[in-house]
Amino acid sequence: MQKPGIPSGTRDFNPGTVLKRKFILQNIEEVFRLFGFVPIETPSMENLSTLSGKYGEEGDQLLYKVLNSGDFLSKADHQAIQNGDYKKTAISIAEKGLRYDLTIPFARYVVMHRNDISFPFKRYQIQPVWRADRPQKGRYREFWQCDADIIGSDHLVNEADLVKIYASAFRKLNLPVLIRYNNRKFLDGLCAHFFISNHVSEFLTILDKADKIGMDGVRKLLEEKSWSGNAQQALDVLIELSTQATNTDKLAVVGKVLGEEHAGYTELKLLHSLLENGGIGNAGFDPFLARGLNYYTGTVFEVVPDLGNEISVGSIGGGGRYDDLTGIFGMPGVSGVGISFGLDRIYDIMELAGLFPEMQIPGPKVIICCMDEDSIPYCVSMLDQLRNEGISSDLYPGAPKLKKQLDYANARQTPWAIIVGSRERESGHAVLKDLISGNQHELSTEAIISQLKS
Amino acid sequence: MQKPGIPSGTRDFNPGTVLKRKFILQNIEEVFRLFGFVPIETPSMENLSTLSGKYGEEGDQLLYKVLNSGDFLSKADHQAIQNGDYKKTAISIAEKGLRYDLTIPFARYVVMHRNDISFPFKRYQIQPVWRADRPQKGRYREFWQCDADIIGSDHLVNEADLVKIYASAFRKLNLPVLIRYNNRKFLDGLCAHFFISNHVSEFLTILDKADKIGMDGVRKLLEEKSWSGNAQQALDVLIELSTQATNTDKLAVVGKVLGEEHAGYTELKLLHSLLENGGIGNAGFDPFLARGLNYYTGTVFEVVPDLGNEISVGSIGGGGRYDDLTGIFGMPGVSGVGISFGLDRIYDIMELAGLFPEMQIPGPKVIICCMDEDSIPYCVSMLDQLRNEGISSDLYPGAPKLKKQLDYANARQTPWAIIVGSRERESGHAVLKDLISGNQHELSTEAIISQLKS
Repeated sequence: MQKPGIPSGTRDFNPGTVLKRKFILQNIEEVFRLFGFVPIETPSMENLSTLSGKYGEEGDQLLYKVLNSGDFLSKADHQAIQNGDYKKTAISIAEKGLRYDLTIPFARYVVMHRNDISFPFKRYQIQPVWRADRPQKGRYREFWQCDADIIGSDHLVNEADLVKIYASAFRKLNLPVLIRYNNRKFLDGLCAHFFISNHVSEFLTILDKADKIGMDGVRKLLEEKSWSGNAQQALDVLIELSTQATNTDKLAVVGKVLGEEHAGYTELKLLHSLLENGGIGNAGFDPFLARGLNYYTGTVFEVVPDLGNEISVGSIGGGGRYDDLTGIFGMPGVSGVGISFGLDRIYDIMELAGLFPEMQIPGPKVIICCMDEDSIPYCVSMLDQLRNEGISSDLYPGAPKLKKQLDYANARQTPWAIIVGSRERESGHAVLKDLISGNQHELSTEAIISQLKS
Repeated sequence: MQKPGIPSGTRDFNPGTVLKRKFILQNIEEVFRLFGFVPIETPSMENLSTLSGKYGEEGDQLLYKVLNSGDFLSKADHQAIQNGDYKKTAISIAEKGLRYDLTIPFARYVVMHRNDISFPFKRYQIQPVWRADRPQKGRYREFWQCDADIIGSDHLVNEADLVKIYASAFRKLNLPVLIRYNNRKFLDGLCAHFFISNHVSEFLTILDKADKIGMDGVRKLLEEKSWSGNAQQALDVLIELSTQATNTDKLAVVGKVLGEEHAGYTELKLLHSLLENGGIGNAGFDPFLARGLNYYTGTVFEVVPDLGNEISVGSIGGGGRYDDLTGIFGMPGVSGVGISFGLDRIYDIMELAGLFPEMQIPGPKVIICCMDEDSIPYCVSMLDQLRNEGISSDLYPGAPKLKKQLDYANARQTPWAIIVGSRERESGHAVLKDLISGNQHELSTEAIISQLKS
């Protein structure tokens, strides 16, 4: 005998939770389909050669590696084992790993199936991913991503579509959000303008801390750097931008600093105008938004819940444009742009904020309670009839005391019970009991069916 | 640059395949719900202590083990490594493994959540499982199971319900099948009757070969055994049974051999009568059906396609009753019964036999083709209108030559295109083109919407 448990950072989902998660997924998927995206699925396990080196050194550490089957020791790197070099050892005993995100498998898919794909390819993918991260509130080791990407087009209408997908999906979910975007070309241009192009990623890493340490903190960190350019003035521009009331005002500042021919300006302006026409007022240009910039090359997106400060789970979606994602797999120069929805955080916040609509009860609409074993064939045949009429229904298996059966029906939150004893069976009738009001009536099977269907 | 691939035995699914697989899953799930089952989900990774030893020695070898995160070597069993004992080494460096089936995780779930569950608990679970099996036709290393189990009731109405689920689901899928059942208590009783109770599993293993080696082959193998009882006579009974025309005739033989009080007889008889009342004529008592009998203790089920001999993929579903599944996790004496649908084999056979209905096209219903970059805002606003009306639609991103855009729409099997140039834009109209017939008309946006919605 052993006490059962599950790995830390993973979860069981009970029926109510499964249905709520499905509710979120279905809404997101409907929007993906409405926007012309098509689904693909990829294997949970990928070759580690596909995954390794794609997520930075930290990401490599978070990859779940799957031990080779059979006698994995026969090909193990025994020198590495003796040296205690676990990273090198792992390479020799684990060829496969669990999917870390949906983007790299998608890039791999596109390259492998390029001849069957019409570009621009708009795909969505809704699958779990795994990361050996330290579990904490809102962070799990198995979690679901819902991704939509367009690959093979660098037109900004794609970015506009993705913002509209966010807006439509969260509107359907009744979850208020802020959708923010920025553009890497603007940030690069800004750094170039103030001669800190050699320090872009360091600069952005510091900016990313603004939320936590405030502008004064950011300024202090920049002062400590002995860069040749003028990071302080770059920061001044960003602060000036963040004080502008509207996207249009912000764009004017960007145009003034970079010039109106600069891609960092023209891309932001076009996206803004495409969104303004579409009435997506709640999408805002956020000059401080950075998001994993070694990956993205143009627009970046982020979505956070807009429910006041009490409820905070970090971002519930994000994405951006990558100019050359498939290049690593031998298909260079294909531009793509994509977004992701984090199912688990969306679930957590909707649960916390009480945003789920009254959900369908997971169980059956009616449970037949049989008063004596001899009536079971009669009950089974009634059950068949109910199901033939599309009524989700169940029969208590056996004929214990009625109270036990009704307690069971109530515990399952079943709205109706049908009670059959020898008297009902002989009359061809049954008692239909409303388990919410407690009312009950003796009716023919036909009358019961029409009542349950109404 | 690396040439991308995926692990052997795993698959990518393209949009058409994803939708067909969804079609199967949705039909099965609807039947589960109709029959009063509720969904749960469990983590992909379980502790290896939960999985190991549950599937026999062969099963243990097929478990995918996940390497411990971080410096796994620090806790490795170096003695085992030096001895080349990979099994013992694995225990020291891998605590988690991928789910091998849905039954053991379900048993673990029931024990962990027993206080939140109303028994009898009818759960369904639709998730992938992983086995490091040798890949071959119809056998994959990642595949999906759709399980329905009832735990906490030993009544035969549960067995009848499960057979009816099989019948309903395959009827919905339009896939003709043979549903077979047998009962372990009958087989045990038969062995006892002929004094070979000490050799039950050996006897059944030989019977299982009947399909391949024929009855004469089975007889020969039994002759080679020097058992004290009379295996030949047990075989004679089975052969006599298999020559009976109907279930009723077969039952008469069972009753004659075991006596009408024997559970092997009464259970088969009750199940038969419950099914006969429900009109499940295609479920047959198959005295030769064995199915992993170290696991099951009562009724066993199996489903095979009924499409003639040309198409054979083995069983596409199976299950049975287990008297004490949760005992291994500290909750003894709880009887359960369950079935499983094998999604991947069902998909393969439906594809092979051309049984899928005309499927929804995965892509959008209409693609807007924009003739010049200046018309893009106009097209975007038309796109917004179409989507607001619930019409799945897309805009070609950019304004290359019309032919290129129409070729793209055709390649995506889009039934309609909308063509917008400066002339259409100024008139507030657009050309709606039927891509199947080639017909086209200049219409207002309203007229286009009403046409596409009809």
